[in-house]
Amino acid sequence: MEKKGALIVISGFSGAGKGTLVKRLLSDYDRFALSISMTTRAPREGEEDGREYFFVSRETFEKTIAENGLLEHAEYCGNYYGTPKAYVESKLSEGVDVILEIEVQGAFQIKKIFPEAVLFFVTPPSAKILEERLRGRGTESDEVIRKRLLRADEEAELMEQYDYVLVNDSLEECIKDAVSYIDAAKATPLRNKDFINQLKEELDSFSKGV
Amino acid sequence: MEKKGALIVISGFSGAGKGTLVKRLLSDYDRFALSISMTTRAPREGEEDGREYFFVSRETFEKTIAENGLLEHAEYCGNYYGTPKAYVESKLSEGVDVILEIEVQGAFQIKKIFPEAVLFFVTPPSAKILEERLRGRGTESDEVIRKRLLRADEEAELMEQYDYVLVNDSLEECIKDAVSYIDAAKATPLRNKDFINQLKEELDSFSKGV
Repeated sequence: MEKKGALIVISGFSGAGKGTLVKRLLSDYDRFALSISMTTRAPREGEEDGREYFFVSRETFEKTIAENGLLEHAEYCGNYYGTPKAYVESKLSEGVDVILEIEVQGAFQIKKIFPEAVLFFVTPPSAKILEERLRGRGTESDEVIRKRLLRADEEAELMEQYDYVLVNDSLEECIKDAVSYIDAAKATPLRNKDFINQLKEELDSFSKGV
Repeated sequence: MEKKGALIVISGFSGAGKGTLVKRLLSDYDRFALSISMTTRAPREGEEDGREYFFVSRETFEKTIAENGLLEHAEYCGNYYGTPKAYVESKLSEGVDVILEIEVQGAFQIKKIFPEAVLFFVTPPSAKILEERLRGRGTESDEVIRKRLLRADEEAELMEQYDYVLVNDSLEECIKDAVSYIDAAKATPLRNKDFINQLKEELDSFSKGV
């Protein structure tokens, strides 16, 4: 079977616990690396090039876009942000599973260029619990909560296009499930084309050779 | 998430070890039941109605076909064999995962009627090992082995339409993988339509209610 790593895309509702999940996957398992984004914004104090971001000039960023060097990109507040293809691909070829935390539109951009990517949608076990978690933060106004729920409602429409729905009820279970679903995804025919083709070729030559 | 059982379809090359895998899944785990086929052939000594097969008359079998009561059926040597839908559905609704060991054409018949079925294709780690296993039985002529390899070659073309490729290298690993892939399959959006729809409805009413 494949020895290459898998590209793991993690999306989900605000308040679903994506960030904690990703942190724990990275700290608990050697097999994962976080995709590092490229940006044109200036580094903040304590940020290091190649750790938080790859910090580049606008010129370099646009050259990378033109060369098809990004898996996805977007512009916020006058700065570019994107996912460099080369970094992801070099990690994957080392057999490392690369994790990318990204919202739904970015996730589908990735899937288009990279059909073998494994798309996870993280959700609390119910909408009730999602609302409670959003309120539980205690810092948001009703207006902000309403906007988040509206956005969740829109995102829920797109859940069906993900590979796996990851229910975050207990965090520990959720981490174990994520790892186990990633292993399962690696056993799908889509991600074993080389293995299947080799098998076909060999069977072809053997059945002629007997 | 879904509490219903999953319909597990197991196909694979002759010599891949499907039979042993199925036996071990049934003996090692309470959560699995074997689908019992319906047939018009006479019971052999020691066979019990409802254990090896449901033994029925030709008339009953044809009535069951007409009533759409079979997930798939075929005729061999003048006898009908088929998979009764009612038995499978009653087990699934009890939360039991039902296993069906069946060749590729039957598997695709099942998938058509039952899109949530999880299709496994069992294969040795290489064509070389498949050939060795077929030869290792020591009882088959070159002609029989050549036919099996030709058939494997044809079946390999259809592997890509399965949900998971299950490599049977070590049997113990293969059993664990099968169980883990079944759990993963249960987390796909296709098999969580009720959960997703409920989530959408609740989000819809919550976002309006805040």
